[in-house]
Formats: sequence, structure tokens, C-alpha cells
Amino acid sequence: MSLGFTLAGQDKNARAGVMTTAHGQVPTPTFMAVGTAGTVKAMTADAVRATGAKIVLGNTYHLMLRPTAARVAGFGGLHRLMDWPGPILTDSGGFQIMSLAKLRKMTEEGVTFRSHLDGSAHFLSPEGSTEIQFLLDATISMVLDECTKFPATHEEAAISMRLSTRWARRSRAAFTPRAGYGQFGIVQGGVYEDLRAESAAALIAQGFEGYAIGGLAVGEGQAMMNAVLDYSAPMLPQDKPRYLMGVGTPDDLLGAVARGVDMFDCVMPTRAGRTARAFTSAGILNLRNARFIDDGGTLDAQCGCLCCARHVRGYLHHLFRAEEILGPMLLTIHNLTYYQSLMSQARVAILAGGYEDYCAQVRAGWVSGGQKA
Amino acid sequence: MSLGFTLAGQDKNARAGVMTTAHGQVPTPTFMAVGTAGTVKAMTADAVRATGAKIVLGNTYHLMLRPTAARVAGFGGLHRLMDWPGPILTDSGGFQIMSLAKLRKMTEEGVTFRSHLDGSAHFLSPEGSTEIQFLLDATISMVLDECTKFPATHEEAAISMRLSTRWARRSRAAFTPRAGYGQFGIVQGGVYEDLRAESAAALIAQGFEGYAIGGLAVGEGQAMMNAVLDYSAPMLPQDKPRYLMGVGTPDDLLGAVARGVDMFDCVMPTRAGRTARAFTSAGILNLRNARFIDDGGTLDAQCGCLCCARHVRGYLHHLFRAEEILGPMLLTIHNLTYYQSLMSQARVAILAGGYEDYCAQVRAGWVSGGQKA
Repeated sequence: MSLGFTLAGQDKNARAGVMTTAHGQVPTPTFMAVGTAGTVKAMTADAVRATGAKIVLGNTYHLMLRPTAARVAGFGGLHRLMDWPGPILTDSGGFQIMSLAKLRKMTEEGVTFRSHLDGSAHFLSPEGSTEIQFLLDATISMVLDECTKFPATHEEAAISMRLSTRWARRSRAAFTPRAGYGQFGIVQGGVYEDLRAESAAALIAQGFEGYAIGGLAVGEGQAMMNAVLDYSAPMLPQDKPRYLMGVGTPDDLLGAVARGVDMFDCVMPTRAGRTARAFTSAGILNLRNARFIDDGGTLDAQCGCLCCARHVRGYLHHLFRAEEILGPMLLTIHNLTYYQSLMSQARVAILAGGYEDYCAQVRAGWVSGGQKA
Repeated sequence: MSLGFTLAGQDKNARAGVMTTAHGQVPTPTFMAVGTAGTVKAMTADAVRATGAKIVLGNTYHLMLRPTAARVAGFGGLHRLMDWPGPILTDSGGFQIMSLAKLRKMTEEGVTFRSHLDGSAHFLSPEGSTEIQFLLDATISMVLDECTKFPATHEEAAISMRLSTRWARRSRAAFTPRAGYGQFGIVQGGVYEDLRAESAAALIAQGFEGYAIGGLAVGEGQAMMNAVLDYSAPMLPQDKPRYLMGVGTPDDLLGAVARGVDMFDCVMPTRAGRTARAFTSAGILNLRNARFIDDGGTLDAQCGCLCCARHVRGYLHHLFRAEEILGPMLLTIHNLTYYQSLMSQARVAILAGGYEDYCAQVRAGWVSGGQKA
């Protein structure tokens, strides 16, 4: 039996569900903490669990280069290696090749590139990406696709989407079904409704265990992203999880959940945490700011994380000023807890039929603090 | 009632005791993790507690410059600020002024210096250092002293030691006694037995709650350090704790405990952890070494810390290669656990009358691994 998904409730288009995997259950909507190179940066796995996270993401591009997929398999898989027995989703590697690798060359067969680490030559095909994710022991594998650039003409977006569709078929053929594991297709088509529909229909015909919406959060802006989600989400099966890749701000998440998205990933909470920026119920705070030097208050009075329960803002300010590693550690704990709490409370609100009020209340909190989170 | 100390057992000169403070009890011998700027580097306070640590050290020089003693006091003291309700010992600031500050000028009155952070001018006297440690809410304060350089002639060591003796009197006069708090004198005198005796006698006359042996581990080598300890430790009261400042390697600790020392501090386990070096029962390992790339074994099979219980050496190697913060975090956890375990097992051995055998067994383990830890 492959990876399962059941809807527990719906409030307009917002969905509350449960994903059942070989590595445990995931209530949705859910935010996946990004563990790029086999670690959620600045976090022990215990600390990640303490944020409420149920599923984390690994990056195929980074892991195939170092330590390599064969080594991860030799160590017993990514779960064992990073002390995360829970579900792990891995991306296909395609997005990072385009953003990080050198001397990329794309053909029908796949992508040739050089490592950004040591310049070594590599080739990634849909079959190769699927095999690597198998070796990593990913609970959820993603098909190799091309993330269509923005802006793109209708013709460019169509050509790119159709290549991704052919690659999705090859990825699916290379996928080894196992109980509680799954593979997600990725809808492309840029900002063109007809292309999104063509992509979705072709993927649904393949019978994936879930569907991602790709090619967004690439510069189109939140309004256009929401417009695409408005028509794209309803193209996807009700009974499968929907994953919006690489998104986003807390406000992006609220908006996408309202439009029927179940899963998210983004480096934002972890990266922000390492640069002294905190997501709070009163908006974004930069703890390096001198106004916090004597601040004996809690970072976020509505948060129960280790950082908020034990330390004052003035201490966090001090840690960042002194360039102490504990600064990034504590703010990453807080930011991931904030994202998890945002999603778990959204779920409660959806099940209670009050999602719109919940969003209004959360947004009012951000406004009260003077800055939208 | 000031800080208390009772001997629980003795094996030749090695002592097992219990120090009782306003912030809890500390079984000795004990190693104090160094929390320089109000944080044990790369560790949450929970993680420090999980290593078995009962007392940590803070650095007056760092804290007086940033966030400043007044701010620490404003936040409710160092315990509250760093989430460490247990005992904290603070040094006097003298040692770091000599090693870090700029444009130092020492007079009978105290030391004038410029901050290594921003060049600002400061003055530290015995009274000022004692007041700062009061503001920090240090469980144990240290007197301001001059760490005699090595090598020093008998005359140089005598002049330096006598200045420290006068400063110790002024520090004692400035100390505010509180229940469960204490202040330690620091024996100086270089490598000269008559000077160490003169220093010890003058300090004991002041009636401190404990006595430190200073001016060692400054380049004299382990053999000479042990020779000085051989005659210096017996000069100190049996019923007060003895603290060897800034020491040292695991082997240094075993040797000093054998000579009657109860307390230690050193940046070695934390600093080594951040540079991929692990102290283990089989000696020192450098996890950056390529031979660990495929190593699926436990870092130290005799250790039960988070790092050893959950991860393989190949993962640690990967984390350091990828410059992931989790590498320093996990090795600091391990190294501090190793030091705590070394001391707690030493205590058990002393109480059982088998300290010499214990040391021989630990050292044989290091030799088996090919390198002395």
C-alpha cells in the first residue's frame, strides 16, 4: 500500500488532512523544515522534533555531491544518518542544478553540469534522480522537472512544461513502489492556465501519490502566485496531497492554504534565524537592532519554544552581536516553531470552520507589530 | 552561611567532595564548561546540563565589555540570562586583559586597558572586578590577580606574586558575603616553592571559601606543572575546594586530581569540538580526516551522549566537510560529556579506593587508539 492521504475536514477551499507514510503520519497543512545537506541547519534532530515538525526535506543535488547517494545508502539511508526516523521528502535536484551548478547543459536526456563544490562533472536524468532518491530512502520522491523561468512567453512555458511532462513519465517508470512510500508529480506551465491544465492532466494520468505545484515563488509576486493557485489547485485530485514548492512567507502560507494547498517547504525560517530575523505573532523583528539591547521581554509572548520560554530579547541581541553560534540556534528553533504553530493552528481553524477568521486574526497581529511577517 | 565543601572520600592525595552553593551542589572533582560570553559556545543550556555539567564558568573581561555587568544585572543576573540556574564561577578578568586587551598598563591601583572589541578605555581594580562579579551574580568570584609569566626569575615571580597578594586583600575587602556564595583566592609564585608557600599562607590568612592555583599551563609543560602541584596542593586547607585554573587535557586532569585538585576549567573540549577534534576513550580523533568518510561506527562506543547514541562518524565527517553548524554542536556535546564522564568516573574510583587503577585503565585506552588524549 503506497503513501496515503485522507481529508479530515475542509473550510471553503482550505483543507485539513492526514498523510500516512512508512515513517509515520503527517497532519496537514504542514510545513517541511529544509535539511539541505542532511541536517536542518543549526539544529539537532531532537530540536527539530521539538518544534512540532513531522516531516523534513532533503536536497538531492547537495546530497548526491556530498556525501553521495551511495554513501547515504551505505550508512542505512538518510533517516538513520540524520537521526530522523520520520518522513523525509527529497526534491529531484533539478532546481538546485539550475541555481547552483556550473556549466549546465540540458538535453532531452537530462542535465549535464559541474559541481559548485569541486567542479566535477555530473549527469542527472529523470531515471538517475529517481534512483538517487531511492538510495537516500526518501519517503516521498519528486520527479525531475525543469522549473520554468519567469517571465516566460506562452511558447517558452509550453516547451518547458512538455519536457517536464516527458521527464515525469520517465521518473514514474523508474520509481520503485514500496509500502508507505510515494512519488509526487510537479505541475508546471508558468502563469498560463491552459498550460497548467495540460500539465496537471498529463500527470494525473500517471497516478502519482501526490502533486506539487512548481514554478512559483520565482519572481512573479504574491498576487500572481495566488492567481495561479486559484485555478491550479482545483485541477488536482481531492484525495491526494498538494505541495507548493519553495514557499514561502507566513502570509504566503496562509494564502496558499486558503486555496487548497497542503504542504510547503522553504529555507526562509532557518535562513532568517541565522541572520537574526525572527518571525513572531507581532511581525518580523531583527534582533541585531540596537533597540533590543536592554529589552528584558520575551521574543514572542505567544510562543512556547525554548528560546521564548527561557531567554530575553536582550540576550538574543547580545548573542548576535557577539557572533555566538547559540544566536542562530535559538532563532532557528523559534522560527521553525512559529511556522509549525502557524500550520497546526490553521489545521485546528479549518476543522472548526473558522479559517478565514484565523487568518484575519494572525494578520492583525502582524500589523499591530508594524511589519507584515 | 557561605559556600560549603565537605570531603566524601580520599584515595592517596586524590579527593572526592561535595561543594554546596546557593545554586545547588557540585560533586567533585568537577570540570567547569567555559561559557565565555554568557553561553557555552554552540550549546543550549539544556545541552550543557545533559553532558552532566553541574557548574559553568563565565568570563568577567568579556561580559564587562559586552553586554556589560550593569546590563547582566538589569536582566536579573547571569543565571537568568543564560538559562543556567546552577552554580556559576566567574574569573576576575585579569587573565583575559593580559591575553586579549590592547594598550594595557598595570599599576598598584589596577589595570588600564582598551577593549579588543571597540578600543574603548577601561580600568579594572580588585574592587572593580569584585563589584562586576557581584553584578553578574557569580556564585563563586575570583580575586583579581596577575598571572605570572613563564619563564620568570625568582625576583620577577616574587614581585608579581606580592602584587597579587595585595590585590587579593583588596578583593576580599570588597567582597559582599551572601549565603551559599563564595570568593576564591589564587596562589601564585611561578615555579618557586618558597613563593608558592608565601602566597598560600597570605591567602589562607584571609579565609577564602576556596583556593585556586594560578600561573600554570602557561608554557611550563606537564611535568613541571605536576611538580608545582606536588608541593602546592598540600599547602592548601583540606576542607576547602582547590581549583586549577585553565587546565587542561584529560591527562592533565587525571594527574592534577591525583595531586589533590578538585576543580578545573578549560576551553579545550569546546574549542576542539568546533575544529572537528574529538576526545574519546581511544584518544583524540580528527573528524575532518578522510579516513572517516565511510566510517559507519560510533564516535566513542563507551559514550552515551546524543552524538554517539544517534550518529556515525561518517556523518560527523560529512558535517564538518559541509561546514554545517551541527558538526561543532555535536562534537561539543560529545567532548563536554567526555570531560564530565572522566571526572564523575574519577570520583567513583576515588570513593572505591581505586583511582590509580582507573587512571591506568583510561590511559591504556588512549594508547590503544594510538594517541594520548
